[in-house]
Amino acid sequence: MPVSTGPPTTYHAELAWLGDRPEPDVLIEVGDEGRFGAVTALSPGARAPAGATRLPGLTLPGFANAHSHAFHRALRGRTQEGLGTFWTWRERMYEVADRLDPDSYRALATAVYGELALAGITCVGEFHYLHHQPGGRPYADPNAMAAALVDAAGAAGIRLTLLHTCYLSAGVDGAPLAGPQRRFGDADAHAWADRVGALAPDPDRWRVGAAIHSVRGVPADQIPTVAGWAADRSAPLHLHLSEQRAENAACLAHHHRTPTELLADLEVLGPRTTAVHATHLTDLDRTLLGDTDTGVCACPTTERDLADGIGPARSLVDAGATLSLGTDSHAVIDMFEEARAVELHTRLRDERRGHFPAAELLAAATVAGHRALGWADAGTIAPGARADLVTVALDTTRTAGTDPAAVVFTATAADVTQVVAGGRVVVRDGHHVWLDVPAALRTAIEEVATA
Amino acid sequence: MPVSTGPPTTYHAELAWLGDRPEPDVLIEVGDEGRFGAVTALSPGARAPAGATRLPGLTLPGFANAHSHAFHRALRGRTQEGLGTFWTWRERMYEVADRLDPDSYRALATAVYGELALAGITCVGEFHYLHHQPGGRPYADPNAMAAALVDAAGAAGIRLTLLHTCYLSAGVDGAPLAGPQRRFGDADAHAWADRVGALAPDPDRWRVGAAIHSVRGVPADQIPTVAGWAADRSAPLHLHLSEQRAENAACLAHHHRTPTELLADLEVLGPRTTAVHATHLTDLDRTLLGDTDTGVCACPTTERDLADGIGPARSLVDAGATLSLGTDSHAVIDMFEEARAVELHTRLRDERRGHFPAAELLAAATVAGHRALGWADAGTIAPGARADLVTVALDTTRTAGTDPAAVVFTATAADVTQVVAGGRVVVRDGHHVWLDVPAALRTAIEEVATA
Repeated sequence: MPVSTGPPTTYHAELAWLGDRPEPDVLIEVGDEGRFGAVTALSPGARAPAGATRLPGLTLPGFANAHSHAFHRALRGRTQEGLGTFWTWRERMYEVADRLDPDSYRALATAVYGELALAGITCVGEFHYLHHQPGGRPYADPNAMAAALVDAAGAAGIRLTLLHTCYLSAGVDGAPLAGPQRRFGDADAHAWADRVGALAPDPDRWRVGAAIHSVRGVPADQIPTVAGWAADRSAPLHLHLSEQRAENAACLAHHHRTPTELLADLEVLGPRTTAVHATHLTDLDRTLLGDTDTGVCACPTTERDLADGIGPARSLVDAGATLSLGTDSHAVIDMFEEARAVELHTRLRDERRGHFPAAELLAAATVAGHRALGWADAGTIAPGARADLVTVALDTTRTAGTDPAAVVFTATAADVTQVVAGGRVVVRDGHHVWLDVPAALRTAIEEVATA
Repeated sequence: MPVSTGPPTTYHAELAWLGDRPEPDVLIEVGDEGRFGAVTALSPGARAPAGATRLPGLTLPGFANAHSHAFHRALRGRTQEGLGTFWTWRERMYEVADRLDPDSYRALATAVYGELALAGITCVGEFHYLHHQPGGRPYADPNAMAAALVDAAGAAGIRLTLLHTCYLSAGVDGAPLAGPQRRFGDADAHAWADRVGALAPDPDRWRVGAAIHSVRGVPADQIPTVAGWAADRSAPLHLHLSEQRAENAACLAHHHRTPTELLADLEVLGPRTTAVHATHLTDLDRTLLGDTDTGVCACPTTERDLADGIGPARSLVDAGATLSLGTDSHAVIDMFEEARAVELHTRLRDERRGHFPAAELLAAATVAGHRALGWADAGTIAPGARADLVTVALDTTRTAGTDPAAVVFTATAADVTQVVAGGRVVVRDGHHVWLDVPAALRTAIEEVATA
């Protein structure tokens, strides 16, 4: 695996997405520190410098995938047999979780992050709760599984925010973790914090954020410890919120408040916080999230696979929440599909077109996702920003003849030709530069899949 | 363009979809008349004959696309600017319709049918109403536009059912066609029938079916003429049904019946009839469609693009209707996506997984679609059936590590490697054998697109 970002390079993009639209003939300098230098549009008729590397098609900022469970990729196309209910999926998910060790987790995550890279994702937020040995005993290095993810991101050439997840209970009533869940847990939030404190991130390659699994997974009296850890470090704080109605019902029964109300009372909401899914909300919930500037990470391809329902993305954004996107369970890894599904699912529900303009969807996939993961200096093609680029072919069967400004509605991951992450070319001609991603996926999944 | 189907061939499929599941090591003979000969599974350990052509991956029967408006492909990614409402789309659609002539229509449809071929579609039902010159004057050959479609299907190497559409009025009240709609119309249903009667199909390559645009497009007193024409010839009869709520409201106001009730009263329903969309139905409507064994063609990627809503696919099939699939407006051309969207949209609505097993979705995309288009002898890999094959790679980033039986949930059109239509290889290594489809799309669309 190459480790340097290579010498300074100048790209000449046929079209580059600057701000909120494609601009023709853009020169993009990439410095040796993995950041953009000058970004300039060529004057009409001017020629690009001789040494510039031509990027045909449309070049976008790198995508940030704000919500990933890498190991769920082993379930793709393996939970649909017969009628494949939610319980089929959950049972398989726990079986795979039970089988992983640091080596197989590293191998699987490397392959999955390779697939992310091929889809143009240059930074991933891994919602990581597979901490300990099956049964719950810590590994000799209590962060051995986290280290496997850090290795994997490095091996795939993308940046990582390790959203180190506190997961203590199986229900809002504080029921203990049982069976395959036991390896997810720490004794309490302080034990979680001690363990996270032992991590030594490399701020150009990987960073640490905190995560509260959900109001089910962390008892209310433990939540402030996790939130406080993140606040003390100005780190991102993520949590699953109201993905399915059952969570709301249980929370109302136990706490006499919705999950959002509970989190508001615990002072967990705010601009560093990202609520993942936020599918089933009351009007008050939406106001609380919006008024506090809380981020919302939609994962529509997972939400349709798991039958979660259609979330109120438009009204959340209108209320003040910032939208990011995640491929979550990796039933699909395609940020174009993820982004347009926000619009298309809203159309299905409201029977009306035209909720999110293309630029707003691309902002969710790029700059907003990076911000949700704690990378305020990434997600735009601008001087000084981290040099992440995704080039999309405009001459494939899918994109031919379409307006480049609407590429989020027409392209697929298969149309990504080149990806630059932190200045380094990771994908070229639609192939990962140094990984055989399909072979790595097959080997890693055969190792851990159960059906 | 090659015209012969070539000499007899034996394929050795790593996996072939026989009946309702993938079987390993299947020998598939293709005769020189474009039909399958013997289809036999190799005994375990036996070797394939030396001359057999290996097909790695999973080989499925050819897909039938039961509902196409070829010219709508020119709108892909061109109706989303700003907030892109339904009216943006409809205005652009009429602008494109207004610009086409037989030559540009032939060029555009050839490119679109090439894209269909690349997606594994070996037979298309074209819901054709772009009949006359702008303003409504017939061409010297009054079927010149139909002939362009026939040429296009031949040029792309796929079979066609020309669903020759009667379109007479702009509303259920019989309001006359106006503006760009005028080229769609005939004087009455008899004039339509006279014109259709002049067509001379080639029953191995293209056939004719009848279509009633909708209860808006054909006044109730003209509908029996169109239905009778189809009945006299045992030809398929297609119609748009209850795609949006406004159609139901107008029909109730004018006819005091739902569109389905009106069609039942006119004796239009039955096993040769396919209702396209059938999105907004009453319980009685569903019973009427099911009891009469009427086909239903779902077009879920278009229905989400146009914000039609989520149709009752599961309960329609349970009531007795047969499900087929169409890519309709070609916002997306991907039969895997179309098929799984039937399940996934139902999940979004019902918040429950497990409505359609994979085999049922693939049957809709293959055998049921062919039957809806009047090709009872196609859509299965079986002796005597038309030799249509779609081979899907199982070693791409999308399909690696997944269960081949669930390929409809994991593959995309980009994973199709080889397509055989009527015995002839049309797609090889993911490329059309003799068409440059992206270039043809771009050229044809630039000729007619307006924005």
